Amino acid sequence: MTIAPPALSVFETLESEVRSYCRGWPTVFDRAQGARLTDEDGRSYLDFFAGAGSLNYGHNNPVLKRALIDYLERDGITHGLDMATTAKRSFLETFQEVILEPRALPYKVMFPGPTGTNAVESALKLARKVKGRESVVSFTNAFHGMSLGSLAVTGNAFKRAGAGIPLVHGTPMPFDHYLDGQVPDFLWFERLLEDQGSGLNKPAAVIVETVQGEGGINVARAEWLRALADLCRRQDMLLIVDDIQMGCGRTGAFFSFEEAGITPDIVTLSKSISGYGLPMSLCLFRPELDIWEPGEHNGTFRGNNPAFVTAAAALDTYWADGQMEKQTLARGEQVEQALLAICEENSADGAHYRGRGLVWGLEFADATRASKVCARAFELGLLLETSGPASQVVKLLPPLTVTPEELDEGLSVLSRAVRETV
Amino acid sequence: MTIAPPALSVFETLESEVRSYCRGWPTVFDRAQGARLTDEDGRSYLDFFAGAGSLNYGHNNPVLKRALIDYLERDGITHGLDMATTAKRSFLETFQEVILEPRALPYKVMFPGPTGTNAVESALKLARKVKGRESVVSFTNAFHGMSLGSLAVTGNAFKRAGAGIPLVHGTPMPFDHYLDGQVPDFLWFERLLEDQGSGLNKPAAVIVETVQGEGGINVARAEWLRALADLCRRQDMLLIVDDIQMGCGRTGAFFSFEEAGITPDIVTLSKSISGYGLPMSLCLFRPELDIWEPGEHNGTFRGNNPAFVTAAAALDTYWADGQMEKQTLARGEQVEQALLAICEENSADGAHYRGRGLVWGLEFADATRASKVCARAFELGLLLETSGPASQVVKLLPPLTVTPEELDEGLSVLSRAVRETV
Amino acid sequence: MTIAPPALSVFETLESEVRSYCRGWPTVFDRAQGARLTDEDGRSYLDFFAGAGSLNYGHNNPVLKRALIDYLERDGITHGLDMATTAKRSFLETFQEVILEPRALPYKVMFPGPTGTNAVESALKLARKVKGRESVVSFTNAFHGMSLGSLAVTGNAFKRAGAGIPLVHGTPMPFDHYLDGQVPDFLWFERLLEDQGSGLNKPAAVIVETVQGEGGINVARAEWLRALADLCRRQDMLLIVDDIQMGCGRTGAFFSFEEAGITPDIVTLSKSISGYGLPMSLCLFRPELDIWEPGEHNGTFRGNNPAFVTAAAALDTYWADGQMEKQTLARGEQVEQALLAICEENSADGAHYRGRGLVWGLEFADATRASKVCARAFELGLLLETSGPASQVVKLLPPLTVTPEELDEGLSVLSRAVRETV
Amino acid sequence: MTIAPPALSVFETLESEVRSYCRGWPTVFDRAQGARLTDEDGRSYLDFFAGAGSLNYGHNNPVLKRALIDYLERDGITHGLDMATTAKRSFLETFQEVILEPRALPYKVMFPGPTGTNAVESALKLARKVKGRESVVSFTNAFHGMSLGSLAVTGNAFKRAGAGIPLVHGTPMPFDHYLDGQVPDFLWFERLLEDQGSGLNKPAAVIVETVQGEGGINVARAEWLRALADLCRRQDMLLIVDDIQMGCGRTGAFFSFEEAGITPDIVTLSKSISGYGLPMSLCLFRPELDIWEPGEHNGTFRGNNPAFVTAAAALDTYWADGQMEKQTLARGEQVEQALLAICEENSADGAHYRGRGLVWGLEFADATRASKVCARAFELGLLLETSGPASQVVKLLPPLTVTPEELDEGLSVLSRAVRETV
Repeated sequence: MTIAPPALSVFETLESEVRSYCRGWPTVFDRAQGARLTDEDGRSYLDFFAGAGSLNYGHNNPVLKRALIDYLERDGITHGLDMATTAKRSFLETFQEVILEPRALPYKVMFPGPTGTNAVESALKLARKVKGRESVVSFTNAFHGMSLGSLAVTGNAFKRAGAGIPLVHGTPMPFDHYLDGQVPDFLWFERLLEDQGSGLNKPAAVIVETVQGEGGINVARAEWLRALADLCRRQDMLLIVDDIQMGCGRTGAFFSFEEAGITPDIVTLSKSISGYGLPMSLCLFRPELDIWEPGEHNGTFRGNNPAFVTAAAALDTYWADGQMEKQTLARGEQVEQALLAICEENSADGAHYRGRGLVWGLEFADATRASKVCARAFELGLLLETSGPASQVVKLLPPLTVTPEELDEGLSVLSRAVRETV
Repeated sequence: MTIAPPALSVFETLESEVRSYCRGWPTVFDRAQGARLTDEDGRSYLDFFAGAGSLNYGHNNPVLKRALIDYLERDGITHGLDMATTAKRSFLETFQEVILEPRALPYKVMFPGPTGTNAVESALKLARKVKGRESVVSFTNAFHGMSLGSLAVTGNAFKRAGAGIPLVHGTPMPFDHYLDGQVPDFLWFERLLEDQGSGLNKPAAVIVETVQGEGGINVARAEWLRALADLCRRQDMLLIVDDIQMGCGRTGAFFSFEEAGITPDIVTLSKSISGYGLPMSLCLFRPELDIWEPGEHNGTFRGNNPAFVTAAAALDTYWADGQMEKQTLARGEQVEQALLAICEENSADGAHYRGRGLVWGLEFADATRASKVCARAFELGLLLETSGPASQVVKLLPPLTVTPEELDEGLSVLSRAVRETV
Repeated sequence: MTIAPPALSVFETLESEVRSYCRGWPTVFDRAQGARLTDEDGRSYLDFFAGAGSLNYGHNNPVLKRALIDYLERDGITHGLDMATTAKRSFLETFQEVILEPRALPYKVMFPGPTGTNAVESALKLARKVKGRESVVSFTNAFHGMSLGSLAVTGNAFKRAGAGIPLVHGTPMPFDHYLDGQVPDFLWFERLLEDQGSGLNKPAAVIVETVQGEGGINVARAEWLRALADLCRRQDMLLIVDDIQMGCGRTGAFFSFEEAGITPDIVTLSKSISGYGLPMSLCLFRPELDIWEPGEHNGTFRGNNPAFVTAAAALDTYWADGQMEKQTLARGEQVEQALLAICEENSADGAHYRGRGLVWGLEFADATRASKVCARAFELGLLLETSGPASQVVKLLPPLTVTPEELDEGLSVLSRAVRETV
Repeated sequence: MTIAPPALSVFETLESEVRSYCRGWPTVFDRAQGARLTDEDGRSYLDFFAGAGSLNYGHNNPVLKRALIDYLERDGITHGLDMATTAKRSFLETFQEVILEPRALPYKVMFPGPTGTNAVESALKLARKVKGRESVVSFTNAFHGMSLGSLAVTGNAFKRAGAGIPLVHGTPMPFDHYLDGQVPDFLWFERLLEDQGSGLNKPAAVIVETVQGEGGINVARAEWLRALADLCRRQDMLLIVDDIQMGCGRTGAFFSFEEAGITPDIVTLSKSISGYGLPMSLCLFRPELDIWEPGEHNGTFRGNNPAFVTAAAALDTYWADGQMEKQTLARGEQVEQALLAICEENSADGAHYRGRGLVWGLEFADATRASKVCARAFELGLLLETSGPASQVVKLLPPLTVTPEELDEGLSVLSRAVRETV
């Protein structure tokens, strides 16, 4: 019996060649719930991808769904630019009470347009405006977005080449663990800053991810982050933490930098902040940095009110106490044990793993292996994507709300996929 | 009796100073339906702003709302990146059948991230990649967005200054009617292109709005657009029409360039494409330009499936026949007559108006007058914003679905506001 | 009898392909005196090129030669960086007494390195530093030099392409007579400056040549220059006159802008300032602009003391009274009459001429004609080069010290070359 | 008895504040011979500065002086652009026979304008043109010149700030010995190049000085240079050695890179190439890189024929055999012993020295000490300048033709100056 190929025709004939995920997962998805998607043929897939980190609370989370539909039914404001609305007020109050105040974070909140790259663009603009300098330091294998400002601080050469102009005003520095493990952290960066002859244009800011998701699940140590924060303070540079993928609980705590005990000057949030996969983003910053003029940065969809509704509901539901953080760390241990077992198998051929909370990477010595593992996993009903500059890392990003049983199921599939791709 | 000021406190204390619309419209909006918003005190406002052009079919349009809630209720995919989904297929098929095919437009469709500026960034990237040149020509008083790529081709000096870096690779040319009415169109631009000593870096593309909304409701003539398209063809530059605000029927036809009979190489759409105010954008281009590599441009929210659902419903409902275009042109005549009457009054003090379809501008000789008129209109229950480099133009952008009676009501309020701000 | 080709071998085998003049004038020059060069075969050439304007006082001018050799014989300082030397003092005093004071010009004098492009680089740096802005406006067909700062304000597309990077921070405006003769001067430029939505980055400065030598002998009218100076003043931009080729008496007065009665903020001089063809350049500016820190701009050969010696001798000899200016204007009339006669001949085929002082251009309708004329002139013993973006202009630049008889001789050769290239 | 201050008035009143050397050496120099200058009051100074490396054969070297005056007397071509002249041919032939052929160097020769920065600009242009990339890697504390192209690859923050625009397209890497002595050479650089996610724009070229003169007399080891050359070859980057200050025998061999046994792709020469302090520069490159179009880079004074005459004479006189190299190395040993003795004295307070050939640096722990030492040396009749980002290094750069006695005399003065500035 032969199976007809999925009916992808309009995607192939009408949609641009730029499409990518649909190539690795050649089916047409129809519905989703929690950690599972279903395609139009009724086949179910376990999701260890979670919308690239946008679905920390699972697909179509029922609590958020209820709040969203209620809001839509009562004709709440849908599109609000930066008008004051009851939904926005509710979100702001909840964010303050549930997130900022308990953590003693003094931030002002900016709605910079509902995508991550827009949040990064606003953060970079503000930093440059505050410091009066153009240069920004980013890190090797950073990913911050695809518009020109964000792309200039993104590491991937393939994505950078797409800019069509030389990307300037950004300088890469080595991320934690990047060199040989012998070179003192920040030796090079600090020397450049202290030396009036170094040739480094003094940066307005440093932008960093605490765990680099697209870059290969590279995990910065807490002490490295603290040393970076300290260097920024001593050298009069603003510290921007791009928490778009790693925030909203992905690493355990709501903000990924909490474990390190630092307070960045500027923080970007997006992906899971709406909780429901709806476009939304925030730029947070110390109040003394709030030197924006009214309307100096704007964007048509910066007031996506349905997203405010689900965002407030998500914060209320999951972050009013410390349960979510504990659960995520527990689930993370479950993942780590499974990865340890996989790596110890002969079939893994020297793979190693790394991660924090519920973001994990499994890196293979043979860079092509990761893609094969993901392809096999898809056949077996598990969504996994690769990351890293050579796509050499299998990235595990299940919803935070995944059950232990679902985790086990997915990890078993992964283990099998590794074995079956030798 | 005194009225207590609206309770704006969390907006003032927590939200960034960058907020703007909420300053001119100092109330807290709660619900909306069609052409009307209601604030939390139950006061109703007629909306001649329409989400800056994002709500062409009115607030919470009941047909789209039904489709949206049904989709949510059945747990359709919400967040889909660029996975193939049934909702996306349905949108693509509808867009092809209802929009592209009847107009014989050969475009491929790219989902570049759900905001207008992201669509513009992708258009600029593609043009530069195709032509292998960095430079892009834009027009005086253009507005294309706030991320660095888009901002570099935007005219407003205040917004440009926010970049924090010098904005380069863009050169402004005079928009239609910009100079004294005597200078032949494109005299300067064409001379620069033909002269090997002119100093103009040869542009990859020209980006233009057919009607400049933010720039002051500047309307390009059809013959000017045709001459521009012809110049682009002769000089090997791509023509990008940014139809984010003027597309989706704002000027009558679905695309604002249809009247001129031109076929741009690249078109950007956003704002009203989802029909419901949900973030969504498209970049359309001739198939021979589709040289993107998979994933060369991406974005987390480029697959906003609820927006695909409302977008398909909007196209089906409003664009399957030619009624919407006819209605918009009829409503436009109604607006024009009212503006003519206003301008003929003494109190208008030499104001003049311009527009097309349902986008109109009323410009005052005294630049401060427009803001006063808008402020007075707000007090009288009508939402209107200003535009133009000196905010000297009152901008009328009612929903396309506005009734003749609502139009009359709003135009009367405008007329009164003009009289009462002498 | 056949003539063996000149022995150019080492030029062809060892020197880079970048060489150019030696291709049009395929002989090996050996000696020179006044308006004549002699090649190694003893053949004499009349020189209407004058080192591209560097030899206004002729080759190896005997007065300057005497001063130079005396200085060398007595072991005067040759290389002095910016040390105080007796030769430099003598030059500065002479320049002040003979040039600046009689013209009531208040300038400070900077020695920026001994080439024209270095003078331009220093002028642009200073303007940007003073105004705190990056952008500079230049004009169509401008030529200011080949280092990256100067090249960015140079018009020629071929030279610009050599940069290897996109040239930014410069915007071209139409030079006098550039458009159709109907467009009011500065209509476009002034509109851009006054309109906060124009998209033009506010310029720090405008850089202009009063006569564009490389650009095709384009002569700005005095009233155009005055209007430009006025625009700069009103719009807070510095006016830089690049007088490298047109200064030192080329147009009659010592500075080419004297006729217009303007006082630029910054002036660059080079080429004929040393008088003897020795590398030297100056950057002059209003004293209030002298905000340089010590050593902020420097250069190894900025103290070329032999050049100071010949420069001072040239000023003393030729500029202590008004004779040189009168003589140049008289010689110019002689050229003009000859060009008028040439253009009236049938063989000139619609050529026209333009010029001022002793810089003249003869432009042919057929762009290839100018090169043919110059080639034929070379065969007939006259050095002439072409200019303009299509090399369509024969450029006449005889030494200012040329005798009426030499002028007649050269103009007759030119006339014959025109006739013989029909 | 009081001594009247030197008559510096016209320097102070008319010359720009940018002047620098004349501030540290407050006298007016008049004549010079060999290693000695004489001021207008007849006071003699021993010169350990040598025109910042432009006077390797001493001031007004009698052999070169004779050749120069003879050439001037016979009315040889003075100013020649890139016309073929007998003087240029003679230089080219001599350079080929005396320099290139004995070293088996295959270079083509370009005359890019007579200053070092112009040579660097041409080298950078060519590298970018050949490779089609914008980015160039330079090193910490590099100095390559003051025009915008060269300045972008220069390290000094004070000089960079003078640009008035953000300097881009250059990235600094650590020079030899820059870090802690533990980090493997090129660990960081090579990692960046190999990693497709590093964020480094792939460089067209690397530009390096073998000894950084302005940067503080930082001496690269031969093995470091070889490893760099190897890295460039493996990573498809051109290697540019800027030998402007260190070439022409300063380190012993004619080219400073000979000791390392490498053959750079591009070499820049200036300063001492004319031998007499006359402005001249060369850009040398492998013949396969010679893709210049005629006239694509040019410059008015690129044919400084008197400099060709002295340059050819210098090569004939000093480089026809190996004596000069041996002598320089012997003189260098003499310097080294003296510096060793100085550093061992208590009064030196932990100073240390470094150098090669006849370029040496004496660095003090107290950065202000070097300036004091130079000031005291001047009082004692010795010219010495500081270098390094904090001016913390006394730089010894005597003429190569200095006698052992003069060296002793100067080193004694230096030793005394160190003792007297405790």
